[in-house]
Amino acid sequence: MSTSTAQQQPSPILFFQTINAHQRTEALKAAIELEVFTAIGEGNTTAGEIAKRCQTSERGMRILCDFLTILGMLTKQGDRYALTLDSATFLDKHSPAYLGGAVEFLASPELLEGTRHLADAVRKGGTPIENEGTIGPDNPIWVKFARGMAPMMQMPAQLIAKLVDPKADRKLKILDVAAGHGLFGIAFAKNNPQAEVTAVDWKAVLEVAKENARKADVADRHHTIEGSAFDVDFGSGYDLVLLTNFLHHFDPPTNETLLRKVHAALADGGRAVTLEFVPNEDRVTPPDTAGFSLAMLSGTPNGDAYTFRELELMFANAGFSRSTLHQLPPTIQQVIISEK
Amino acid sequence: MSTSTAQQQPSPILFFQTINAHQRTEALKAAIELEVFTAIGEGNTTAGEIAKRCQTSERGMRILCDFLTILGMLTKQGDRYALTLDSATFLDKHSPAYLGGAVEFLASPELLEGTRHLADAVRKGGTPIENEGTIGPDNPIWVKFARGMAPMMQMPAQLIAKLVDPKADRKLKILDVAAGHGLFGIAFAKNNPQAEVTAVDWKAVLEVAKENARKADVADRHHTIEGSAFDVDFGSGYDLVLLTNFLHHFDPPTNETLLRKVHAALADGGRAVTLEFVPNEDRVTPPDTAGFSLAMLSGTPNGDAYTFRELELMFANAGFSRSTLHQLPPTIQQVIISEK
Repeated sequence: MSTSTAQQQPSPILFFQTINAHQRTEALKAAIELEVFTAIGEGNTTAGEIAKRCQTSERGMRILCDFLTILGMLTKQGDRYALTLDSATFLDKHSPAYLGGAVEFLASPELLEGTRHLADAVRKGGTPIENEGTIGPDNPIWVKFARGMAPMMQMPAQLIAKLVDPKADRKLKILDVAAGHGLFGIAFAKNNPQAEVTAVDWKAVLEVAKENARKADVADRHHTIEGSAFDVDFGSGYDLVLLTNFLHHFDPPTNETLLRKVHAALADGGRAVTLEFVPNEDRVTPPDTAGFSLAMLSGTPNGDAYTFRELELMFANAGFSRSTLHQLPPTIQQVIISEK
Repeated sequence: MSTSTAQQQPSPILFFQTINAHQRTEALKAAIELEVFTAIGEGNTTAGEIAKRCQTSERGMRILCDFLTILGMLTKQGDRYALTLDSATFLDKHSPAYLGGAVEFLASPELLEGTRHLADAVRKGGTPIENEGTIGPDNPIWVKFARGMAPMMQMPAQLIAKLVDPKADRKLKILDVAAGHGLFGIAFAKNNPQAEVTAVDWKAVLEVAKENARKADVADRHHTIEGSAFDVDFGSGYDLVLLTNFLHHFDPPTNETLLRKVHAALADGGRAVTLEFVPNEDRVTPPDTAGFSLAMLSGTPNGDAYTFRELELMFANAGFSRSTLHQLPPTIQQVIISEK
């Protein structure tokens, strides 16, 4: 980011870069929509060749590819463009780790709309979008989330399963709250053949989770409960309750209400496993983790990126005996394991 | 911006940062609209104090100020925020170099709209916005430009006047093409008491230039011609013709037509003085200069950030004998001086 205070002369460059930053979002969106990275991966390397493959003008493609090069998403030698390691891995449709579908969620009209009224969100202290922004009942954004973000969650899901259940040698009854694509619960089921998973989410979202459970060959150990995590009956006797990217949508009292319900659903010795964006106590580092709070301000009534101290307190108030913080490299997220 | 090819492990971080980059634009827009930098400059330093001064929620202000800190536009110590040198200079309304008004142009709905249809612009090779995007006759965006961008152009205008007319010791007849705020011509008139300036632009835009000429006490040497630079009669016998931030809106044949008209309007020994974003021949460096072409793709039918070689050829084809390239530090723009 910048260390402008170290300069002697003031410069408006950071102002320019920041006010024009929306161009970066739109350039990446356009490149994914037009399949530019895929075209280059197939061996089209000049603007003319890429334009032909993507059915665009050559002039427009040249300007777009130059901009992507400036952003560090392509390289350029003479008039030939090439993929970086990152773009080859995540942005070429032929790559198994292709993440382009995440744009359908991350740059969805719903999320962009909230950000476009940010001054109103700051005035109000929460989303200015009606029906509670993204957290209203059955908001269709969560189907986009479940479909678009699944590829991006494969890796963290596997990392968490290994972290929490490294031996994978005993029966586990798992509740996957607000399961979305279902990949977290599914990763535990893949990791441990004795794990049984129950996923909770809106009906339309669970269809996506069921599809993913079938694809992963764990459908026989994957069950569902339709509805809001705040309203449905969880059942009881769970060894693990997964709370992945969920608590950041709500204020602490709301979370504590949910966590008491989670506590009651756990067997003795059971654990809640939370995946979150957990900034340091200064709330401005690490930058990508801490910056997540802005999306919660613009998109939810009361959500936030909570510090570990805040999360620890919510779990303690809900009756948990002890919470521990775990980094999850190379992701920018953290895991909190809380013991009943 | 990134050197991801040097990494061993692929990372989706740059993808995340880029797809979320629109948040930076909106955070800066909101902060300027709410006068956050001005409030901090006045001595309000906690989120609570700033929120009170800006009439917002404390929670929203805390999240916004943390985000601005992450972007490098504020610093944070404990729970107190402070301005950086850049934000104190350019974003505090009490600073004489305040640039916040530039947001009215740079983040105007008109410019954002073009960027939001970037894939269409790439397909077509030019703006998908009707009426020729920003360059249609009497487009009201140019009044926003003239009002919003004037403070940002004070410094480059003074630098160019000193570069082109360092002695300021003889009569100069100057034509200021597409004058906008008029500051370039006005800077020459301030620099040299024998300079007479004629500004060309749309009628509504010239009202802003006239205001600025009055404020600078050069109204008696500042004249105007209303209309399109392509249509009006320039007159003749000019020592200098100023072409500031104009040629990038058009294709080379259109520019050559205009430059032939400029050539005819110059006296023998006269010079055309062009301010442009001139990328190196690779078209991807320097990054901020080269990246300007994307705005021309999304906002105009055929505009571009031209290399010096391309500009030199346009001037040569229009009859100019010689063009020279000059950097204009600390700006990211360049000056081309072309001799009749």
